[in-house]
Amino acid sequence: MLKTLIVVGVAGVGKSTVLSIATKELVARGYSVRVVNFGDLMFETLKQRGLVRSRDDIRNLPLSIQREVQKDVAEKISNELSRIRALGGEGVYVFIIDTHAVVKTSTGYWSGLPSFVVTRLSPDSIVIIEADVDEIIGRHARDVERRRSDYSDPGLLRELLMLNRVFAISSANLVGASVYIIHNKEGKAEEAASELVNLVVNLKG
Amino acid sequence: MLKTLIVVGVAGVGKSTVLSIATKELVARGYSVRVVNFGDLMFETLKQRGLVRSRDDIRNLPLSIQREVQKDVAEKISNELSRIRALGGEGVYVFIIDTHAVVKTSTGYWSGLPSFVVTRLSPDSIVIIEADVDEIIGRHARDVERRRSDYSDPGLLRELLMLNRVFAISSANLVGASVYIIHNKEGKAEEAASELVNLVVNLKG
Amino acid sequence: MLKTLIVVGVAGVGKSTVLSIATKELVARGYSVRVVNFGDLMFETLKQRGLVRSRDDIRNLPLSIQREVQKDVAEKISNELSRIRALGGEGVYVFIIDTHAVVKTSTGYWSGLPSFVVTRLSPDSIVIIEADVDEIIGRHARDVERRRSDYSDPGLLRELLMLNRVFAISSANLVGASVYIIHNKEGKAEEAASELVNLVVNLKG
Repeated sequence: MLKTLIVVGVAGVGKSTVLSIATKELVARGYSVRVVNFGDLMFETLKQRGLVRSRDDIRNLPLSIQREVQKDVAEKISNELSRIRALGGEGVYVFIIDTHAVVKTSTGYWSGLPSFVVTRLSPDSIVIIEADVDEIIGRHARDVERRRSDYSDPGLLRELLMLNRVFAISSANLVGASVYIIHNKEGKAEEAASELVNLVVNLKG
Repeated sequence: MLKTLIVVGVAGVGKSTVLSIATKELVARGYSVRVVNFGDLMFETLKQRGLVRSRDDIRNLPLSIQREVQKDVAEKISNELSRIRALGGEGVYVFIIDTHAVVKTSTGYWSGLPSFVVTRLSPDSIVIIEADVDEIIGRHARDVERRRSDYSDPGLLRELLMLNRVFAISSANLVGASVYIIHNKEGKAEEAASELVNLVVNLKG
Repeated sequence: MLKTLIVVGVAGVGKSTVLSIATKELVARGYSVRVVNFGDLMFETLKQRGLVRSRDDIRNLPLSIQREVQKDVAEKISNELSRIRALGGEGVYVFIIDTHAVVKTSTGYWSGLPSFVVTRLSPDSIVIIEADVDEIIGRHARDVERRRSDYSDPGLLRELLMLNRVFAISSANLVGASVYIIHNKEGKAEEAASELVNLVVNLKG
């Protein structure tokens, strides 16, 4: 059986930590788990086609190309999901797509799961990882590499968390996926991960 | 002429009462009214297929089956709507689908009107019945049979009312239906019902 | 190259002023700019077909006709966009569609960009122009011609601004358009217009 989850979250909510703990726990419980990072796949595809050298180049590409590659990556994942379904077998396969419901750019909020992407991924559930605004700001302040000025304003962050939900719900509605919101409390990533594990256990693809 | 409405609302807003009063008033005004409860139709379909015995069994079915039956019920209603349209006739037929825009389950928020459902129902209007958070909590506290602990937290309820709107709007946008929000005040179900009646009168399918 | 923008905003946010300043600035920078008003095109189409005499008649038309004309106008614009793309050429063509994400009527909130409209317009970006609630109320109070009682309640206006965003995001998600929110401050329409100009410059169709 295949269970497909899309996990999204605003930068700084602790998504990677939660995903990493949850994956280990799922493997320990005997699930076959595969996590793919949508952004990584986009970068690899663009690099192979000679369109970018670094990740930062992506934002400067024409939107039509970005959309095309978004669709191509979704198609690639869709093909992999079909192969897993075709294999069948006794065990439970958990396929997790690590991505964003919305990305803030200089040309506005871009959907990470527009119709032509989410319909190809056809997830059972879209998981939104959230955190308190103060904690997100704290994580950004400590993260020297990825520090971003627009993540220090509580009002803007609250707005982004809300927009994130609206984008995710609008995507879920296109495919009948559930929307599961996990609140990741500071220092409690294990609890958040355990919520994700329980969701996977309860989901009956 | 056929006017199709979908009426949604979080449990405890008083949807049934409002619908019942409005239906009587519409019939008294000479409209042919038919109210179908989407959940009832899902239960009957699942029972006929031997997949469930009680309503509570529904939540434990694999999601793929739930989605399939959601689609089948929507298709059934769609066929009935086509037959009514084909009949034609002088009178005005009001078809009301009593359902949910979003349902809270152990595997997250599920859409009651995902694209493959709402496009089949093709409503003229999606009516959202809302109530004050305090009044919803009060109704749940008095309703011993359906009492649910997650309906006693004002913050969670406020969130659910907001998500309900977002799901409904996202569904309406797929078919160009209007979104009509009715506030059902404690002890004023007649007023809310009369708003619903006025909407039906003003709607020109 | 063609860049397509849809610009929306609740009545009273100062959309026309911002659009007019931005258009002049874009022309001064050498862009070919075309602004079409969706509502005007709907009115012309309905008038040609003898269905209305004045703009106020539109709201009284059966919804099925309104939706049909919405689709026809979107199709018309889509054909014009195709012609511009086919022309090619060196310069940059900016096509701006001035419309609403949501319209408040007696039969509820109607989407200005339902799926069958937004997929035909296939915009690069949906720009939401917003303003402070107090300033919107002030503009409505001074605008004797268009004064509307429901635009004097801060709570209702705040709700309308929120619904406007949800409708716009849900539409953007259907086509992978970005959502760009511009805050138009009282007496600072030049700044808002300059944000719109920068968006056009940064957008790489």
